[in-house]
Amino acid sequence: MHKEKVVVGIDIGGTNTVFGFVDRTGKILAEDHITTNHYDEPEVFVAALYEKMMITAARIGREVEILGFGIGAPMGNINKGTIEYPADLPWKGIIPLADIFAKHTSLPVLVTNDANAAAVGEMIYGGAKGMKNFVVITLGTGLGSGFVVDGKLVYGHDGFAGEIGHTSIRPGVSNRDCGCGRKGCLETYVSATGLKRTVLKIMADRLEDSELRRFSFEELDSKKIYEAARRGDPIALDAFEHTGAMLGYKLADVVAHTNPEAIFLFGGLALAKELIFEPAKEHMEKNLLYIYRDKVKLLPSELSTQNAAVLGASSLVWSEMDQKR
Amino acid sequence: MHKEKVVVGIDIGGTNTVFGFVDRTGKILAEDHITTNHYDEPEVFVAALYEKMMITAARIGREVEILGFGIGAPMGNINKGTIEYPADLPWKGIIPLADIFAKHTSLPVLVTNDANAAAVGEMIYGGAKGMKNFVVITLGTGLGSGFVVDGKLVYGHDGFAGEIGHTSIRPGVSNRDCGCGRKGCLETYVSATGLKRTVLKIMADRLEDSELRRFSFEELDSKKIYEAARRGDPIALDAFEHTGAMLGYKLADVVAHTNPEAIFLFGGLALAKELIFEPAKEHMEKNLLYIYRDKVKLLPSELSTQNAAVLGASSLVWSEMDQKR
Repeated sequence: MHKEKVVVGIDIGGTNTVFGFVDRTGKILAEDHITTNHYDEPEVFVAALYEKMMITAARIGREVEILGFGIGAPMGNINKGTIEYPADLPWKGIIPLADIFAKHTSLPVLVTNDANAAAVGEMIYGGAKGMKNFVVITLGTGLGSGFVVDGKLVYGHDGFAGEIGHTSIRPGVSNRDCGCGRKGCLETYVSATGLKRTVLKIMADRLEDSELRRFSFEELDSKKIYEAARRGDPIALDAFEHTGAMLGYKLADVVAHTNPEAIFLFGGLALAKELIFEPAKEHMEKNLLYIYRDKVKLLPSELSTQNAAVLGASSLVWSEMDQKR
Repeated sequence: MHKEKVVVGIDIGGTNTVFGFVDRTGKILAEDHITTNHYDEPEVFVAALYEKMMITAARIGREVEILGFGIGAPMGNINKGTIEYPADLPWKGIIPLADIFAKHTSLPVLVTNDANAAAVGEMIYGGAKGMKNFVVITLGTGLGSGFVVDGKLVYGHDGFAGEIGHTSIRPGVSNRDCGCGRKGCLETYVSATGLKRTVLKIMADRLEDSELRRFSFEELDSKKIYEAARRGDPIALDAFEHTGAMLGYKLADVVAHTNPEAIFLFGGLALAKELIFEPAKEHMEKNLLYIYRDKVKLLPSELSTQNAAVLGASSLVWSEMDQKR
């Protein structure tokens, strides 16, 4: 009997690890999760995850053939199948994730970071279908990026390409502390946290009234800032404008490096639509060499935020199979 | 009889167009040139160039088989075989160079910009042999770059990837006019001209004596600044330090985008050795995310400056043949 082919997409986050069984069209046949930070040892984590996946597979209700496991994880490294010095996971140092998986399965296990997985997801299931050269920017707590050149994800020599969140806005001038230990990284401005920091900076500089003045830093979030902006709050509007401008500056660099057909914005901040897209587009164009102007599309991701991480991770395996054909 | 296989490398510059017949090892069997700006029409230029090449081929003294023509030219576009709006050539608009060549030959004609040609040259004949991910920065009157990812030159969607000379050092802060019409582009700091401009800036800001104070802007050149630095001139030394620092800042961005194994510096300024390499390396490392630190090699090009443009251009054809095999 012909079994349906599926791959397992796994998204390892600091709190939860979500997984799903995904068919070639991007349909999730079954999904579930385990709690990442319940497990002090990565070996125990993988054993529990594998067991839970097998139980979930049985729930699909018909027999499927699993082709492989695609994993998106912070600091995931495709070359070595490792997670290296992740800041937000319960495990330290270099975790040989693919090797640990190999104790349970002989199927392919591919590991990369969340933004790279999102880029492949966009190519396989989203708005980048048929595109050969594009970039995906993920805007969450931080800022990630995945570069696709000539139809293939750029991993680079050490497997860590695509960290534009940690390029500097204005070296030696921008002074905002970054979690990576340096100052002025793009993600300290362009991310959910960056937006909050910019609101505080503007409230410090200016006298205008704003509904945001009644929230503490801890209470503030992008949703509150977005809603205030929609109601015309001048400080919220300026914070979005500034955030988009900073993003636009660095997107111009992205274009000058790899000349993509399109740049996709994915994640929370991208949902603010024109509040972020308009200043980003304006400042990107302003900073482009004339040969690039009005050519590069700036588009919202077509992956749904809810399943994107699992879809992106699963797409690693489909993409690998496509290239081997 | 077995004929030796050669390709023709052609370097189109504002004054001269130099060409050479190059074998697979990078040996130039014969070379010559014509004067670019003697020709008002590109069709007449190509006819004259082709005729001159055939006469030169006869000089080799034995029969050779020409496999194709590789052309490096400002604003050369591989996708379309065109030169588009070149600033320094006698022709305007979009020049369909490959199509014009096709009136004379049915062999492959590949056109790209000088820096891309240098990158492929480095891979085929130079220090990047066997490397899959690297970047070449060409430092001349301006600053060019060529990116190689996974063994292939990155051309991008419109064929114009690799213009990091026109990324901004500090958007909105750096104020130096660039020939492209914008302000603060990297090449206004890091190039032969950029170095001169920095010397003038430092002489304006400071009181220290310097042998460079006796030259006009027109008289100054990188050689004079280099020699002054070698003699310990404080202003010349600071100008190199500043130039290297600016380069280092943006090389850190290059690493964060595509994570290369090595970055090669090619051209006049690279010959200043540690005067440029030391500050560039120091400021690149300082601006790198920890996962990249002490991993990326910063190396001098191994192509000789004299023949590099012709070798680079010829390597386009060899590289294309290698990929088709």
